[in-house]
Amino acid sequence: MSYFSTNFTLGILGGGQLGKMLLSETLKYDIRTIVLDPSAEAPARFGCHAFFQGDLMDYDTVYQFGKQADLLTFEIENVNVDALERLEQEGVKVYPTPASLRIIQDKGAQKAFYKAHKIPTAPFEAFDSPTLLAAAVAEGRWTYPFVWKSTRFGYDGNGVKIVRNLQDLHALPEGPCIAEQCAEINKELAVIVARSPKGEVVTYPVVEMEFHPEANQVEYVLCPARIAETISSQARKIALQVAEAFGSIGLLAVELFLTKGGEIWVNEVAPRPHNSGHYSIEASYTSQFEQHLRAILDLPLGSTESKVAGVMVNLVGAEGYAGNVIYEHIEDVLSLPGVTPHIYGKRQTRPFRKMGHITITHRDIEQARLLAQRVKETIKVISRQ
Amino acid sequence: MSYFSTNFTLGILGGGQLGKMLLSETLKYDIRTIVLDPSAEAPARFGCHAFFQGDLMDYDTVYQFGKQADLLTFEIENVNVDALERLEQEGVKVYPTPASLRIIQDKGAQKAFYKAHKIPTAPFEAFDSPTLLAAAVAEGRWTYPFVWKSTRFGYDGNGVKIVRNLQDLHALPEGPCIAEQCAEINKELAVIVARSPKGEVVTYPVVEMEFHPEANQVEYVLCPARIAETISSQARKIALQVAEAFGSIGLLAVELFLTKGGEIWVNEVAPRPHNSGHYSIEASYTSQFEQHLRAILDLPLGSTESKVAGVMVNLVGAEGYAGNVIYEHIEDVLSLPGVTPHIYGKRQTRPFRKMGHITITHRDIEQARLLAQRVKETIKVISRQ
Repeated sequence: MSYFSTNFTLGILGGGQLGKMLLSETLKYDIRTIVLDPSAEAPARFGCHAFFQGDLMDYDTVYQFGKQADLLTFEIENVNVDALERLEQEGVKVYPTPASLRIIQDKGAQKAFYKAHKIPTAPFEAFDSPTLLAAAVAEGRWTYPFVWKSTRFGYDGNGVKIVRNLQDLHALPEGPCIAEQCAEINKELAVIVARSPKGEVVTYPVVEMEFHPEANQVEYVLCPARIAETISSQARKIALQVAEAFGSIGLLAVELFLTKGGEIWVNEVAPRPHNSGHYSIEASYTSQFEQHLRAILDLPLGSTESKVAGVMVNLVGAEGYAGNVIYEHIEDVLSLPGVTPHIYGKRQTRPFRKMGHITITHRDIEQARLLAQRVKETIKVISRQ
Repeated sequence: MSYFSTNFTLGILGGGQLGKMLLSETLKYDIRTIVLDPSAEAPARFGCHAFFQGDLMDYDTVYQFGKQADLLTFEIENVNVDALERLEQEGVKVYPTPASLRIIQDKGAQKAFYKAHKIPTAPFEAFDSPTLLAAAVAEGRWTYPFVWKSTRFGYDGNGVKIVRNLQDLHALPEGPCIAEQCAEINKELAVIVARSPKGEVVTYPVVEMEFHPEANQVEYVLCPARIAETISSQARKIALQVAEAFGSIGLLAVELFLTKGGEIWVNEVAPRPHNSGHYSIEASYTSQFEQHLRAILDLPLGSTESKVAGVMVNLVGAEGYAGNVIYEHIEDVLSLPGVTPHIYGKRQTRPFRKMGHITITHRDIEQARLLAQRVKETIKVISRQ
């Protein structure tokens, strides 16, 4: 099968910023693409060969879209897996596989999977409802504080809460959930793994994520992480173990906790390009988006080494602003060396909405981190008027 | 004026590979773009916000297209300058300026410009026709071999010939031309200069071009060039002098001869992103395409330094093949480290047609050059059946 400048068609479920950045690579390889997204304003509506507006959770919509593709991939986990499974049965390739996505979509199943595969993760218990969780607390099986996670449809810190008292417990929304022991976190790390159908597998260097204390969103991602080589190789080994356990195809981003006790626990995974890998566009020999494409097309995987150090700063909407976006002081940021902005193309800002990111590259990670802080303190995502 | 995620519109004249690679950057910055190209199959028809098919040399077509833009740029010199001048008079910004383009379009005027500005260039004489040139040869003013150049519409070695005898002389096509002394060439070099309306100016490192002996097309571009630092700084100085003389805005690619006598002569310039700068997408802190965008938008210019060494290999159609393209052995090339293919999206190959390029990055330029040779010897651009 030849992919380059042919009628071979890659279908992408989801047209957000991840889809958009993937399209940079499909354009570079001249691979024909179609994109499905619920929003007519989706960032990835440009750069594909055809854009379709539709509900990613709707069986028929996903099925009909998928029938037009030779290979399907997704940039978001919340898609109709039943439709993907039927498409797979009918001969459409779907990577990452629907089977792995089904496990990952359900945080209870995901945690059980780690347990079954002896992959280190925070101790947890699954509950069908917050009422049953409350009963377990009453029995003394769980003591405050602990982490509550909805098993479905969480993203960017949604569907995750720290439960510190009875009031928090009573405020939890209905639905299946898990309780998870609070990790005593030293650092949050991530490793991106790429694996191809023929079983070729590579890991990216370990990155370190620094979180905004209130919004629970990643503020900085640093590559390489400022950790000892022993920790780094252990983290890559665990990430590889997770990817092999899933029989993962395409990218798998593995988020990890480095505990104060020096243990590494798997937090959760995402079977797609990931915010923690955006630095790779500028800093790596092969960007995560090109790597995903190589992996799902079963092409040889590229080098995951870095050319230089990279720090990524997320650009999120400032508090108190909603409406047509302005990137205030972006010119000042552009005057700093090694700074590359990525503006996702969302016209409307709102507090904490992911509007873009900026990558800072430098030979030295500490210098890159200092520049990143200047970037963060300079640019502001606000609205007009 | 805010450019990011607004209705500000950049018009691009020409939708070839240079336009396509520029669109990668406008997508990254979320700048609204429209593209005009004569071919319905133009590589840049995807990735813009609106694509228009039309003749770039037609006054009305260019004028009507330009009226829809706030700022116009071009990826090819052969555009209707009269229309650009009228648009400029009517308040549309046009960068690079029509005035500089008018000089550059005419190789006689370009050479006269260098002479007037005391910019070193090969000795030459302009003629209104080959007949007048033949008379000069008969008078002994020009002796074989010398270079003939048509003053208009040459590209990729077209419109340029070495005249070695009377037969060559008689075979020259009609029209104004120049005769130019053959340079005793040690190396062919190039320097890309970026200059903004506010006068900020930067030069990229000197690159070295290796030509295919028969097709007169660039086979490899190496950055950095393997030359002495004194030559390098002199070449950058001359390129800067050329850009300042033109009052250049946007990119200006300055092609240079390093003569066997150690002199540096300006060969010719291109007021746009250039084949000799493609390596910068992977190897530089700021790619030439992002730099062009920054320059014409009067944003701060980015660092022109390299993260790593880069070698670019042009992918041209193999001799003896015409039709639907196949990139034979591209998988073998992808298995080499630091290799990034750019497939322009032309469905039809023909001998020597520029179909794509491959960048090889490595910490060491000699290693990159070795890998580039393997790439060149492995991949073949052929047609199906």
